[in-house]
Amino acid sequence: MNPILSLNDIQMHVQNLFQQEDFNSEPLELYAPIEYTLRLGGKRIRPVMLLASCQMFGGDIRQANNAAIGIEVFHNFTLLHDDLMDQSPLRRGQETVYRKWGANAAVLSGDAMLIMAYQYIVRQTGISPSDSILMFNTMAQEVMQGQQYDINFENRSDVTTEEYLDMIYLKTAALFNGALRLGAMIGHAPQEALPHLFQFGKHLGLAFQIQDDLLDTYGDLSSFGKQPGQDIRDNKKTMLLITALNQASETQQKRLKELISNNDTSEHKVRQVKAIYDSLNIPTTMENLINKHYTQAAEALNAIPVSDNYRQPLLQLMQELLHRAN
Amino acid sequence: MNPILSLNDIQMHVQNLFQQEDFNSEPLELYAPIEYTLRLGGKRIRPVMLLASCQMFGGDIRQANNAAIGIEVFHNFTLLHDDLMDQSPLRRGQETVYRKWGANAAVLSGDAMLIMAYQYIVRQTGISPSDSILMFNTMAQEVMQGQQYDINFENRSDVTTEEYLDMIYLKTAALFNGALRLGAMIGHAPQEALPHLFQFGKHLGLAFQIQDDLLDTYGDLSSFGKQPGQDIRDNKKTMLLITALNQASETQQKRLKELISNNDTSEHKVRQVKAIYDSLNIPTTMENLINKHYTQAAEALNAIPVSDNYRQPLLQLMQELLHRAN
Repeated sequence: MNPILSLNDIQMHVQNLFQQEDFNSEPLELYAPIEYTLRLGGKRIRPVMLLASCQMFGGDIRQANNAAIGIEVFHNFTLLHDDLMDQSPLRRGQETVYRKWGANAAVLSGDAMLIMAYQYIVRQTGISPSDSILMFNTMAQEVMQGQQYDINFENRSDVTTEEYLDMIYLKTAALFNGALRLGAMIGHAPQEALPHLFQFGKHLGLAFQIQDDLLDTYGDLSSFGKQPGQDIRDNKKTMLLITALNQASETQQKRLKELISNNDTSEHKVRQVKAIYDSLNIPTTMENLINKHYTQAAEALNAIPVSDNYRQPLLQLMQELLHRAN
Repeated sequence: MNPILSLNDIQMHVQNLFQQEDFNSEPLELYAPIEYTLRLGGKRIRPVMLLASCQMFGGDIRQANNAAIGIEVFHNFTLLHDDLMDQSPLRRGQETVYRKWGANAAVLSGDAMLIMAYQYIVRQTGISPSDSILMFNTMAQEVMQGQQYDINFENRSDVTTEEYLDMIYLKTAALFNGALRLGAMIGHAPQEALPHLFQFGKHLGLAFQIQDDLLDTYGDLSSFGKQPGQDIRDNKKTMLLITALNQASETQQKRLKELISNNDTSEHKVRQVKAIYDSLNIPTTMENLINKHYTQAAEALNAIPVSDNYRQPLLQLMQELLHRAN
């Protein structure tokens, strides 16, 4: 019997995994952007989740490395193509692939990266490849669908809270659930645990994304690592904006719609939108909503029929995400 | 025992398959470009190859539909992203996805299409999904590598014949081989047939791509369906150019290098390059090379230990490709 690894142990294991793995191959022009993207670091939340889920059901995390790498490669593929579509100059404080190597390299290396993700998933032992690939496919399609809804919302000012939650489920929570489910498959989780695991991933993902929205506007420059207010400058539909539009007076609503339909990207615009948010107590409303989803996630996690010490790393990960500043 | 289907029967079967399959889903903005691309038609060479290979080894082609669709979806995904990278306005006489829906739609719908290809492959029954996905992954990586080498060659004027053949093996023949191999797996081909099948796909792919190069410069506008000379206008490294550079006199070589390093896209430039090709008998050299590879393909096909009537559809497909005008 292996000792139970703490969250910190699992995080160290994932860091080592990515330090040791060689993503380069020939031709270098195709793989250098992939290697670069995977070396930019990040919190590696999804592979940590996968391994913690695997261990929770009694699986050996050292046997789940391929799936853990695969899920992170997939996530980073989506970031690479997102940066291209958004024409973002920076990712984690470094030049994006799109900026460093150009649009065509971003397209082709991103494609090779998606194929690479499948390579890791199919190499994972201890699970039926048809089960894992079917699950991975469904998850991957959901993420693409979420991104498309996100794009569609850009041209609408009547997005409802329900539509927004459905979108962020697909865009963010589906990948959390994919990671948790792969870990559960490798750990041979009992069937009755899966609905609870699903609810855990869903509410954790929703809380995480709403928190992302909140941090984008109210984050602290020094700890958030980028200039707050980007979503406002981009006229992006966020939980903050949708809630504000719902709760605003007629005059405020009119003003808000004016602000988010022009191409102004000034600090003045950011301040004006924030002033409306503040007057409507949007930050508090968001914090309450985030806490509600974290509570629901914790309840679902506690309903999983395993002893508490096996649940501990995922509970702690949840706490870390709740208190994150970036 | 099923009767042996002729090449024409198989082609009809594939046409029906694509007419009946529904590629649409929600959100429509994500799937409409996929549906559109797959409705543009084309010769459907790769699924036909897959099914003919399956039948050659005694498999039932009606049991191989998912793999056949998957290989064509993958091929069309590469075309969709290629058109984006090349900023091509037209594909099969119709607007490209890139032109019709924009660059971001081309990125995201292409990604969803690659995932869709995996969905069809993993749904294919009668083969081990880990075998088929591993094979499909290798093939898909090879195609990406081939495209990267093709891009790398754009900035070089010293590409050797060997390098060029390696590149078109990856870019074109690897996908032929993937289709043939998947068909062979579903048809439970004997192990000893596989090296011959590989040689068949390889030489057929090389012949096909060199013929593509030849048609691009010497094709007839009415039957080729597009203005000949595009490769010359794009300064693209082709078998014609590489052979011409090898065989040219010093003066011709200097002139050729001048012509292919400027951004001139006039008919005058096309005529001048063609004049050098003509004086070096490049069309005849290319036809001989194409015939050489077709002969090698036919020899490999004949070495496969099956009775001649089972080989017939692939032999006939080869003849059709040899005499194609587009």
